[in-house]
Amino acid sequence: MNPYPSRHFSFVGGTHGPWRVRNNDCLLGEPMAEARRLVVIAGDGLTQLPSVSSWRLDGITSNDRYVLRAEKTALVARQEGLDRPEATCAALIPIRKNAAWWALTQDERRDVFEARSRHIAIGLKHLPAIARRLHHCRDFAAPQPFDFLTWFEYAPSAEPRFDDLLRELRASPEWVYVDRECDIRLLRDGQGPGVQA
Amino acid sequence: MNPYPSRHFSFVGGTHGPWRVRNNDCLLGEPMAEARRLVVIAGDGLTQLPSVSSWRLDGITSNDRYVLRAEKTALVARQEGLDRPEATCAALIPIRKNAAWWALTQDERRDVFEARSRHIAIGLKHLPAIARRLHHCRDFAAPQPFDFLTWFEYAPSAEPRFDDLLRELRASPEWVYVDRECDIRLLRDGQGPGVQA
Repeated sequence: MNPYPSRHFSFVGGTHGPWRVRNNDCLLGEPMAEARRLVVIAGDGLTQLPSVSSWRLDGITSNDRYVLRAEKTALVARQEGLDRPEATCAALIPIRKNAAWWALTQDERRDVFEARSRHIAIGLKHLPAIARRLHHCRDFAAPQPFDFLTWFEYAPSAEPRFDDLLRELRASPEWVYVDRECDIRLLRDGQGPGVQA
Repeated sequence: MNPYPSRHFSFVGGTHGPWRVRNNDCLLGEPMAEARRLVVIAGDGLTQLPSVSSWRLDGITSNDRYVLRAEKTALVARQEGLDRPEATCAALIPIRKNAAWWALTQDERRDVFEARSRHIAIGLKHLPAIARRLHHCRDFAAPQPFDFLTWFEYAPSAEPRFDDLLRELRASPEWVYVDRECDIRLLRDGQGPGVQA
């Protein structure tokens, strides 16, 4: 059996990869080690794992946890995929939420996430300029340093929009529950596609 | 770092463990290999992994996915914990759901799960006689043979209730989305506690 499903992605920071690290910021909690470049490895591509790296973060795409059908329809109608030629900017934003968040029931989390924080509505405003893929890592067998890894891609001209999006989310009630957040900005200047399968 | 978090549990079928396998049924999909005994290993107890085993299923407890606060309050008020001395019967029920289930949005899954199938209400009827713990395994880094492992414990006199509970769930609209289900019934006749930490 393939050791990794197609929903699995690894983000490897070090000296290798098509993405050059422009900024490696830590907003909350422990900073991540420095890395000059990053490679995103999909599915069973881990045979291509660089032999030298600073860190590796793994995540898996999964079912929607909060999105309702009407919201999904609106998102799908507007969103674009990753790997657009003009989207030469990317950001990897790993976050961890605290125990108080995870102790909430589904209705309570949805209330904070959307009714009070407008997480989906804020994201929708910035489509299709900003493409994203969410990866989960809280329910891996082995403990991980973050709960979620979100990967964003956009054209250089959309960076102010992207900063607006983050400013709005970080000011929302949902972010009270975030206890670690890093923000790694990248520029695609290497050869080949952004993701290696 | 501890290689396994305290939310992690392994169910190991083979020739070792305090639980004797009474029945190993397959309701849907591929059957599991035969095993005479079972051990449940919690957290970092995997150093105690039996050297010979037929199979091992891993899962992790996680946040509630559907339960609302009012339902949670009702469940917590009535439910009892695992490891009750009189609860010498157990069942391990691994299930997998199909792609159609995982493509539903949160509101659609909740609608099938509770509004149409009364999953939480059916479970509540049989508390406190039947204690349970749900383990997730769909979002592990490596592919798993099931999406969920549910572990149940009850006194021998509660077995008819337990069969009623399963009959009701299996007849519900939710079960249309189940594409593999096994049902392993166990009796605690070995030495020591049911779970090894």
